[in-house]
Amino acid sequence: METKIDLSKINSPADIRKMDETELKALAAALRQPLLDKLSAHGGHVGPNLGMIEAIIALHYVFDTPNDKIVFDVSHQTYPHKMITGRMSAFTDPAHYDDVTGYTNPRESEYDLFSLGHTSSAIALASGLAKARDLRGGKENVVAVIGDGSLSGGVAFEGLDYGATLGTNFIVVVNDNDMSIAENHGGIYADLRLLRNTNGTADNNLFRAMGYAYRYVHYGNDIPSLIKMFRSVKDINYPVVVHINTMKGMGLPVAEAHKEQFHFAGPFDLQTGAPLHSPAAATEPEDYDSLFANHLLMRMKECPDLVAITAGTPGAIGFGPGKRKEAGSQFIDVGIAEQQAVAMASGLAKGGARPVVGLVSTFLQRAYDQFSQDIALNHQPATFVIFYGSMFGMNDETHLGFFDLGLLSNIPDLLVLTPTCKEEFLAMLRWSEDQRKQPVVIRVPGGEVRSDSTIELLDDYSRPAYEIVRKGSRVALICVGTFLPVMQQTADILAAKGLDPMVINPREVSQLDTATLDSLRDFDLIVTAEDGIIDGGYGQKVASYFGDTDVKVINLGLPKQFRNRYNAADLQRECNLTPDQIATLTENSLK
Amino acid sequence: METKIDLSKINSPADIRKMDETELKALAAALRQPLLDKLSAHGGHVGPNLGMIEAIIALHYVFDTPNDKIVFDVSHQTYPHKMITGRMSAFTDPAHYDDVTGYTNPRESEYDLFSLGHTSSAIALASGLAKARDLRGGKENVVAVIGDGSLSGGVAFEGLDYGATLGTNFIVVVNDNDMSIAENHGGIYADLRLLRNTNGTADNNLFRAMGYAYRYVHYGNDIPSLIKMFRSVKDINYPVVVHINTMKGMGLPVAEAHKEQFHFAGPFDLQTGAPLHSPAAATEPEDYDSLFANHLLMRMKECPDLVAITAGTPGAIGFGPGKRKEAGSQFIDVGIAEQQAVAMASGLAKGGARPVVGLVSTFLQRAYDQFSQDIALNHQPATFVIFYGSMFGMNDETHLGFFDLGLLSNIPDLLVLTPTCKEEFLAMLRWSEDQRKQPVVIRVPGGEVRSDSTIELLDDYSRPAYEIVRKGSRVALICVGTFLPVMQQTADILAAKGLDPMVINPREVSQLDTATLDSLRDFDLIVTAEDGIIDGGYGQKVASYFGDTDVKVINLGLPKQFRNRYNAADLQRECNLTPDQIATLTENSLK
Repeated sequence: METKIDLSKINSPADIRKMDETELKALAAALRQPLLDKLSAHGGHVGPNLGMIEAIIALHYVFDTPNDKIVFDVSHQTYPHKMITGRMSAFTDPAHYDDVTGYTNPRESEYDLFSLGHTSSAIALASGLAKARDLRGGKENVVAVIGDGSLSGGVAFEGLDYGATLGTNFIVVVNDNDMSIAENHGGIYADLRLLRNTNGTADNNLFRAMGYAYRYVHYGNDIPSLIKMFRSVKDINYPVVVHINTMKGMGLPVAEAHKEQFHFAGPFDLQTGAPLHSPAAATEPEDYDSLFANHLLMRMKECPDLVAITAGTPGAIGFGPGKRKEAGSQFIDVGIAEQQAVAMASGLAKGGARPVVGLVSTFLQRAYDQFSQDIALNHQPATFVIFYGSMFGMNDETHLGFFDLGLLSNIPDLLVLTPTCKEEFLAMLRWSEDQRKQPVVIRVPGGEVRSDSTIELLDDYSRPAYEIVRKGSRVALICVGTFLPVMQQTADILAAKGLDPMVINPREVSQLDTATLDSLRDFDLIVTAEDGIIDGGYGQKVASYFGDTDVKVINLGLPKQFRNRYNAADLQRECNLTPDQIATLTENSLK
Repeated sequence: METKIDLSKINSPADIRKMDETELKALAAALRQPLLDKLSAHGGHVGPNLGMIEAIIALHYVFDTPNDKIVFDVSHQTYPHKMITGRMSAFTDPAHYDDVTGYTNPRESEYDLFSLGHTSSAIALASGLAKARDLRGGKENVVAVIGDGSLSGGVAFEGLDYGATLGTNFIVVVNDNDMSIAENHGGIYADLRLLRNTNGTADNNLFRAMGYAYRYVHYGNDIPSLIKMFRSVKDINYPVVVHINTMKGMGLPVAEAHKEQFHFAGPFDLQTGAPLHSPAAATEPEDYDSLFANHLLMRMKECPDLVAITAGTPGAIGFGPGKRKEAGSQFIDVGIAEQQAVAMASGLAKGGARPVVGLVSTFLQRAYDQFSQDIALNHQPATFVIFYGSMFGMNDETHLGFFDLGLLSNIPDLLVLTPTCKEEFLAMLRWSEDQRKQPVVIRVPGGEVRSDSTIELLDDYSRPAYEIVRKGSRVALICVGTFLPVMQQTADILAAKGLDPMVINPREVSQLDTATLDSLRDFDLIVTAEDGIIDGGYGQKVASYFGDTDVKVINLGLPKQFRNRYNAADLQRECNLTPDQIATLTENSLK
């Protein structure tokens, strides 16, 4: 007789600790079905979560959560954890699908210890929990679960290095599914493979070398094997790594077969895996990542020294498996290792090559020091293209794209260009690839690809040179990147009311075009708008420049706040960034 | 007969490649003497350089530099390299001691590939050089020399991880002197010790586990052994780690015996090691690191949950060997691993402990993402005390302390306090240690310790509350941290000229005290001064706030530039930051 599990009765891990192994196996199947339903209807991190159902059951079964502490990393693999820690309806009831976020979130549950979406810091965080426990003489287990590519980040290594010295209970579970978002690269992954292939017995063992005891679970989707292992390390009094070999996409054949495609997916057909909302190819809208990848592939053929680099997000920069193959040795995926991507680009440029690094805005934060020291201070002519740097990009609190402008534009000698449309983006990219003088950041505009054949393209973007898109008087509207069309609409509204506003595309945010700004000294008002936080951004530089003059300056942009799952249109209104609002602000200021 | 080497004939590595082993040994002795003379007379990185003389000779002897590429890290161990690559007089002639910097510098020599002072990025940089070589079909050797603690930085691991996949010539020389600035900590250093103790034969081998071939040189100060080994790996066609066991401070008994003290030292007596310019203990000026460490040691006794953390610079935060011992398990040195220090503090706070992290301004850049994600987004009540965050601190281009204000103060939910004197510093520190609400950064003022019994101390620094230090009208001078006394002098000058300037201590730079600022709306002028770059800093927030009013704002601070070995007083004048200059600017603006 088949064991049936009533998911509505699972309110906390206590409810699964009463189960026997047969029931736990049935629980895994019972969790997998609504998870498949939600993922296929709603989208999300498909493969990572399907692969971790059994391990998460076994962890909560063996460890006394929430007294024992588990830190998940990448926390996008915690949907099963959320299901068994009091948030089942968010997975079983479509009306509640959006009640939970896609990452651990302490505001949702005491079982979620940290908001952790940038990957790789779980071991460091857990080492702090363990040290705090030791200081107060506590006895709870501290477990870091790390995997799905996040082991390659530098902070993961720093955490492993320190954790080895704790000398007390410290359990690192390495979830090894042989994948990051795309396939894994790097020496550690070769070692993980060797360990898998030798059932954990190989002499070359990164974790033992780092000072950890080491255990291996070959059947990482087999609950009894996992329970046995976790029991054997529970209450251990020294640092141990438990390496578990899991199957990304487990239980969904199409996801098992196409791991990269199903790492994260929008709604799809459960049988075929086909996207539900795929437009016909002919009408598919352009996107900047495809424009970027297609351009680079073309240039790579002309220039054998041109090399594209990603830090574990090839898809986000347009390089799916086919294009990676086409690029061959001119494409490099360093894994989740932004510091390596940026510093390596400096070495490549110094060595005479032309590196073009594609980075996701929120993740480039991990390489601030390399931007400053290895790139800017060393004046190396590398090109960095920033994707999703916008309020119109990703909207999870851990994945915000509106902090990058200030972060990068306040580094000396780093040119930060802000194209407004695809023509300008490609012109800037091409110029940067060919110049050998300086490091350049190009921030892809937010929102849908915009074409603008009227934009004035330059042969050289190294010197600040504002484009006056619309001539005018008294009022100047300066709009960074994304906001050019908004400011153009604002100008139309103001013109209809008898004003004659100038519209300026500054093209860049790291240097002021003081000649153009000085020509505005008899203006009454300058309004700046940028697709990022106001603090430390472009507009404040303009306000400072005009601080001791009679020209008034209004800075528009986002307040300095984290936001979680916001609606971009609502945020735009909240920040007075719609054309009507900007026009009203302008009129009121001129009164 | 003793072999004599005429150092004046050593103009490039070509001159040493003609030598036999006896001459090379004599060369090492000949280099060591002027090095000792310069270090003892002038100060510098004593131990690291004395330990690397033989290895640097052997590297340049075997490898065909500058065609073969060597990237040094930490590059403060390159004095012998500078001596044999055309810069001998900067070490033999006191009149030319300051002709060279203390780090590799491409503007000095083609043998110096990068300005590299932040440590740990050499492997990443070299991996780029190697990949560039492979793209163009070159044949030169690429060598990364890493050691003296820099192997623990996350980017070093990211570099090792990627470098293992190159599949071509890639030589990583690990200079293992069993030390960072202080003693080493962490799992990797236990492994290095094991490898030293087994003559490189232990099974637990980090480098093999990461995918490298591995070689070991036990006598890392023996030139023939080094030459033999480097020859064996020259032109190798796969990645290899050469682990060399060197003696920090080699040849100076007092430095061999006291490795931490002689990591970096000011002028000292060559025989006794005693500092030359040590004032009598009774007159020794206070410094903020001692104030900090003494305060923390006192608090640790009251609070067993209070823990101090350093990332490899215990001395810079006042914790010499004695105080570390006294703090016991309440002191943590994570090694050169700022990301770990910051993320671990989040875990400690979450676990109920009270972490206080002491960081050197220029190095905190490596943990920007952890400040943003692990600390601020997670609202963990950890305290961060920033040392040398000032134009009056370190002045090498790789070690500048004036970029931190903007970097940290533009992170949401991170309170950045800027004390002006020791009383305020200690009050803020004590408040932060005891509050459990929010993460706090306290930036130690620059320059000498200032005592000010008139400063108003608060019981709660969480809300913006500007202190009006001097009442006034028409003009307000707002001065961040260090610049309070400068602004007070400015006020005196202006008062003597009949003006009545207000002086404000904002206490913090991450939030505006809008109530106080609004009370200035009928003022004519606000002048801000900050000990950091203007771009992205505090003053621009004030300029933006008053942008659409009639109040004029002048922002003073540093321009957004790297500087190398500047004179602080000159820079202060260049930036119009002296009292006379500020007074003149103010008067002119009011005309």
